[in-house]
Amino acid sequence: MASKHMENFFKPSSIAVIGASRKPNKIGYQLLRSIVEAGFEGDVYPINPKAEKIMELKAYPSILKVPGRIDLALIAVPASIVPKVLEECGEKGVKSVIVISGGFKEIGGEGVKLEEEVKKIARKHGMRLMGPNCIGVYDPYTKIDTLFLPREKALRPKKGGIAFISQSGALGVAFLDWLTMEDIGLSVFVSYGNKADVDEIDLMEYLMEDEKTKVITMYLEEISNGRRFMEMAMKVSEKKPIVAIKAGRTRAGARAVSSHTGSLAGREEIIEAAFKKAGIIRAYDTHELFDYARALATGRVAWGERIAIVTDGGGAGVMATDKLTDERRGVGLKLAKFKRKTEEELRKILPPFAITHNPVDLTGSATPEMYRQSLEIVAEDENVDGIVVIALIHPPGMNDKVVDAVEEIYVKTEKPILVAATGGTPTQKVLLEFQERGIPSYPEVERAVKAMKALVERGKYLSRKE
Amino acid sequence: MASKHMENFFKPSSIAVIGASRKPNKIGYQLLRSIVEAGFEGDVYPINPKAEKIMELKAYPSILKVPGRIDLALIAVPASIVPKVLEECGEKGVKSVIVISGGFKEIGGEGVKLEEEVKKIARKHGMRLMGPNCIGVYDPYTKIDTLFLPREKALRPKKGGIAFISQSGALGVAFLDWLTMEDIGLSVFVSYGNKADVDEIDLMEYLMEDEKTKVITMYLEEISNGRRFMEMAMKVSEKKPIVAIKAGRTRAGARAVSSHTGSLAGREEIIEAAFKKAGIIRAYDTHELFDYARALATGRVAWGERIAIVTDGGGAGVMATDKLTDERRGVGLKLAKFKRKTEEELRKILPPFAITHNPVDLTGSATPEMYRQSLEIVAEDENVDGIVVIALIHPPGMNDKVVDAVEEIYVKTEKPILVAATGGTPTQKVLLEFQERGIPSYPEVERAVKAMKALVERGKYLSRKE
Repeated sequence: MASKHMENFFKPSSIAVIGASRKPNKIGYQLLRSIVEAGFEGDVYPINPKAEKIMELKAYPSILKVPGRIDLALIAVPASIVPKVLEECGEKGVKSVIVISGGFKEIGGEGVKLEEEVKKIARKHGMRLMGPNCIGVYDPYTKIDTLFLPREKALRPKKGGIAFISQSGALGVAFLDWLTMEDIGLSVFVSYGNKADVDEIDLMEYLMEDEKTKVITMYLEEISNGRRFMEMAMKVSEKKPIVAIKAGRTRAGARAVSSHTGSLAGREEIIEAAFKKAGIIRAYDTHELFDYARALATGRVAWGERIAIVTDGGGAGVMATDKLTDERRGVGLKLAKFKRKTEEELRKILPPFAITHNPVDLTGSATPEMYRQSLEIVAEDENVDGIVVIALIHPPGMNDKVVDAVEEIYVKTEKPILVAATGGTPTQKVLLEFQERGIPSYPEVERAVKAMKALVERGKYLSRKE
Repeated sequence: MASKHMENFFKPSSIAVIGASRKPNKIGYQLLRSIVEAGFEGDVYPINPKAEKIMELKAYPSILKVPGRIDLALIAVPASIVPKVLEECGEKGVKSVIVISGGFKEIGGEGVKLEEEVKKIARKHGMRLMGPNCIGVYDPYTKIDTLFLPREKALRPKKGGIAFISQSGALGVAFLDWLTMEDIGLSVFVSYGNKADVDEIDLMEYLMEDEKTKVITMYLEEISNGRRFMEMAMKVSEKKPIVAIKAGRTRAGARAVSSHTGSLAGREEIIEAAFKKAGIIRAYDTHELFDYARALATGRVAWGERIAIVTDGGGAGVMATDKLTDERRGVGLKLAKFKRKTEEELRKILPPFAITHNPVDLTGSATPEMYRQSLEIVAEDENVDGIVVIALIHPPGMNDKVVDAVEEIYVKTEKPILVAATGGTPTQKVLLEFQERGIPSYPEVERAVKAMKALVERGKYLSRKE
């Protein structure tokens, strides 16, 4: 039953919006609008004591007056009224509730008490409660969208295989907006706020079984129950990779967490060790979370740390090599040492001035066909566990056909291939095209190299001796 | 005189293009086209023994047949013919020559000998020679453009205050293209290739006196003359900041450098110490070079390491704090401790649930006006040496007026202010608007924090005791 109630957050047949409003400057208006505009196909019941109709939908003065069954209730009324409407939800038999409203634990004092009260009511009725002080759920597959921000202000990503759960709502929205621009697909987004009930552990458990989710990404500020978190993360990691930002890792950062959510960030050394043990791949900077997730979402891992680089720019190849092999400022992997046969075969197909050892440099004479041929040779080398392809498109012989060329080898090999290219709009178009074909691509060589490291970590975790 | 000959690379009155071609697939065609399309206003002489006219310009069979004086000769003929045409340049009295052609030291063997020959000829005639195997110069002010890549394939940045000199041509072009998309302005770009004569030391010396250049950025693979390099860098650093990527910093990277240009990367520990002593700010990853340069181009520095953060997203504030204060994975600066007065004044103007200590969190209730007021207060705190502003534009009260708000305080204070915001297209527009107003802005909080570190380093260098 518990898991059915969790499922209702993502796959309800009917939704009540308590606090739905006719005034565009109200959250209750935006919330209803998001549900409607997302194209949700089930029943939607606006709850508002003063309205007959909102957005062409019949409104009800109370959830108790709604005739049908309600799978999911969204609450966006002032904090002080939340207990009352939550009681009504209980009476109505609603088992899944998202409390969007703020004004609880995060403001301290009275808010803390109010949150305790809300918790008690939910428990009494056997409800699962998400929030309070959260943004809720965006699911591009089932068209649930509880984000109370208009789509023109915060874009919604397309369908994909990455689940993203965020303790911070604002950061979550900023990331969603960014992902949309980068054309990265999501399986689901959840902002769970103060986690009075539903927390990251529940969400991991749910997403572990969610078939469309290939990778779980998380933005965490604190972990409430370390032992349970670990147990669940270890279970999940067996099935799918987890990538997480755990913020508040410095003393000053931990103090900032405490101001932000009133919770404790936890000791960094413990978290670092725990994440490692649980196979959680840690992201530190903003771009890393989804850079890693995109690589992991392909389902490929690197079964060793010997990486090949194929480039058409010598300088870019050197920078990638630095990042790859640097222990301190880079990822500390190994530049693969090719078998003699590999170099011989490359020598046959490449111009005489090209470099046939790793990093392979096709030089400014590069063509898509050279990429195809050399990748075919390099991918077959047993000493190579993964390939970073640097495809600068400026040389005269280069063009967007390089996408076909790389794809041809990509589908033939099981080894991970990540692509990088730096440049302006034409380059960005090529990177997007790679992305569309399911080949992760990055605007900087260092980002591709770091993502490869995530694939190596995943490979190590999966092949570890227990 | 020597410096006049250097100046001719950037401000010639007349240019000869030796090897100019009528065939679009030839470098000699693209080269001439770039010069013409850039709108160069001096005389242009295509040199081609078989053509009467190229692109509406009268062509000459040899440079010796050109009637007027020639300030700058560009050479794009096969390597084997370069000595001959270079002799003719000498005979004609040309003192500044860019040899675009490849096929010299970088291919080893015969190429090495050919390069020695070219060097000798240049020396004999008292010429300054740039290249061979280079892309040459792009100067948006004087409209010199020797990039043999069509503008639709490699975009050209607008005018600005950042000089960029690159040992790698391909990387240089990729960066230029990228800078254009990011709307970042350049004072000049130079790809100097094999540096048979003109090297990074000559270019630093020239750019030191170049008024439009506020910051010098460099991509280096090897430094030929360490002692002279250091002397010059120390001299330049007194006048303007230098930011440099020195690639080939790992053993594998150094080997890759050797394959790329046939030169030695040098020992990393020595380079690290030398750069520090010379005040060169080191960039490691691709984006860092211009992230730092943009901040430094404002002319502002941080005279201490106590940084304030003002945010409208708690999570983003925590991430920025982590990056700021982390010694190992961040920049190891200090979160400023505000004076009591600062917190009191913030308390007066901000909503009760806002956080008034550092990092200041305006919360999702943020408005541009709140940014204006709180920045005014924070900028006046003597305990603050620099400010990172995080301006997520998703909250309902936020919009692009935040640019005006920040600018109003920016022009009043001398302290550095760097802006960060993560998000989709609307966010990117706001970031560009900041950039247009001369306020450096970044798409990730970590990038703004790292750029602030560059300003702290610059401040430390300038205020060091000799």
